[in-house]
Amino acid sequence: MSPELPDELFDAAAAGNRRALGRLLTMVERRDDLGAVVATRAHRDGGQARVIGITGAPGTGKSTITGRLADVSGAARPAILAIDPSSPLTGGAILGDRIRMDGHISSSAFIRSMATRGHAGGLAVAVPDAIRVLDAAGCDPVIVETVGVGQVEVSVAAAADTTVVVVTPGWGDAVQANKAGLLEVADVFAVNKADRPDARGARRDLELMLDLGHQDGWRAPIVLTTANQGKGIEDLWAEIERHAAHLRESGQLSRRRCQRQRDEVADRIELGLRDRAGQIIESEVGAAVLDRVEHREISPAAAAEMLLAPLTPDPGPES
Amino acid sequence: MSPELPDELFDAAAAGNRRALGRLLTMVERRDDLGAVVATRAHRDGGQARVIGITGAPGTGKSTITGRLADVSGAARPAILAIDPSSPLTGGAILGDRIRMDGHISSSAFIRSMATRGHAGGLAVAVPDAIRVLDAAGCDPVIVETVGVGQVEVSVAAAADTTVVVVTPGWGDAVQANKAGLLEVADVFAVNKADRPDARGARRDLELMLDLGHQDGWRAPIVLTTANQGKGIEDLWAEIERHAAHLRESGQLSRRRCQRQRDEVADRIELGLRDRAGQIIESEVGAAVLDRVEHREISPAAAAEMLLAPLTPDPGPES
Repeated sequence: MSPELPDELFDAAAAGNRRALGRLLTMVERRDDLGAVVATRAHRDGGQARVIGITGAPGTGKSTITGRLADVSGAARPAILAIDPSSPLTGGAILGDRIRMDGHISSSAFIRSMATRGHAGGLAVAVPDAIRVLDAAGCDPVIVETVGVGQVEVSVAAAADTTVVVVTPGWGDAVQANKAGLLEVADVFAVNKADRPDARGARRDLELMLDLGHQDGWRAPIVLTTANQGKGIEDLWAEIERHAAHLRESGQLSRRRCQRQRDEVADRIELGLRDRAGQIIESEVGAAVLDRVEHREISPAAAAEMLLAPLTPDPGPES
Repeated sequence: MSPELPDELFDAAAAGNRRALGRLLTMVERRDDLGAVVATRAHRDGGQARVIGITGAPGTGKSTITGRLADVSGAARPAILAIDPSSPLTGGAILGDRIRMDGHISSSAFIRSMATRGHAGGLAVAVPDAIRVLDAAGCDPVIVETVGVGQVEVSVAAAADTTVVVVTPGWGDAVQANKAGLLEVADVFAVNKADRPDARGARRDLELMLDLGHQDGWRAPIVLTTANQGKGIEDLWAEIERHAAHLRESGQLSRRRCQRQRDEVADRIELGLRDRAGQIIESEVGAAVLDRVEHREISPAAAAEMLLAPLTPDPGPES
């Protein structure tokens, strides 16, 4: 009989059973009672794996870099968590990149694709859960690939121990990367498709932005890669390892992880609040207040204030 | 003496006083008591202007298109609201695009730039407020330019009556636009920089995506533009007007606007709840719960649940 209870599944997953690992991830994604059991055990046992984020604009070659990094890491059990951006309206995910990526992978990496269903906020809690499950099941490193196009995606990438930002000469100048908020989350840069004209120009732009920015004991190194030919990937991996060593030696690793957990609790609270906001709007009182907004009697701001009044936290007993 | 009270400022702004209009926008952006007065009056008097959203990836030429559209609209008092994406970490805005845009504007358009300070959610409420002020002051059309890189930005763009999605042959294929969630909010497409190779390829890709997608009485037309030479802008404006007529005739205009107000109230409630959640996390109870997460006694999910308990809405009297 195949294992179906969380503890059995964790044992099987730790022994290398991919189906068991997949089942655990599905459980935790569902966010039901069984998922909570999985999440709690994963949280208890996690904290060992190196977590590496790979982000950048669409079309920069992130997936290829991710697959190649898993290869050159030489790790026995690397895992790849690929976040599929999905339409805000349908929740559908496009898996083309996944397929393209698969062509480049020869290693034994465990690959999981996650769609960003529903509101983007869901991603901010689903990803840490999945990382912890992979971690608790003995995968290391866990490489998280996201498209860095929005603040949520950028914050997911920044939730890694080490974040690699991928740019290409063709994507535009460093100003565009800065606009997307990517420069400030970068621990390491990869200028991919470096066989294209002006790769060195892209590097120079990045250096300039780094000169202007704030340095905090670590200046993000810039590595030129041509991932589809496997070029520069070993150098990139070396810089990732150098950054990991810097985090450990400077004590920043535990500080970062602490901050990450704090942020995650905040994200989860926000998500819970959103559910509650939905309940308020759907209620009879909510409908009546919306009606007044529609008739231009009260402004949307005043409506929100009225609906929020009952939810103002109790200041608690005087101290 | 120059007017300083909201009602006087509205009168002056309606008469074409740009400084008065700027002051009103600043008041409403501050979100203090005076801002609430401005927002309420703007909400009461608004609802006349056509609201057009222009969105697309960085570097597609949105700003140039926006400026040119204001010109060809032939309107007496067009307004442009340019949303500056800012870094999630610093809150700074890069104004290069604004400067580039200004070179292309010969019309009398009123231009206001808004930075997306702090959490992206703030944008979702600040933009409708600003649109209503412009509208109530007699500006028409109100053209809102946003960078379509994240779900919040996309949803801001989708809050317009008519949303124009700008792509370029160089930006990548239609798959990338779909990934960013742009295809489904598009009422009209502009393939800009159409003097580049493969502009027709980009159009073909879009047609293919439209063939696959859901049609709801309106198929988004695709216009080739070369905005920096002014080419195609009149065709683009004609399609925008055609879409506006479709919205009016089909009754969708009022449905869209209703839904938009509803969404805005929900966004405002969420924002208010987020403030309250911040207070909870910063409290002594919050610190104690976070401490237990750090020691791996409870999971982040359990922590969030504990902290949310006081904000769960009262089910109210039995009915």
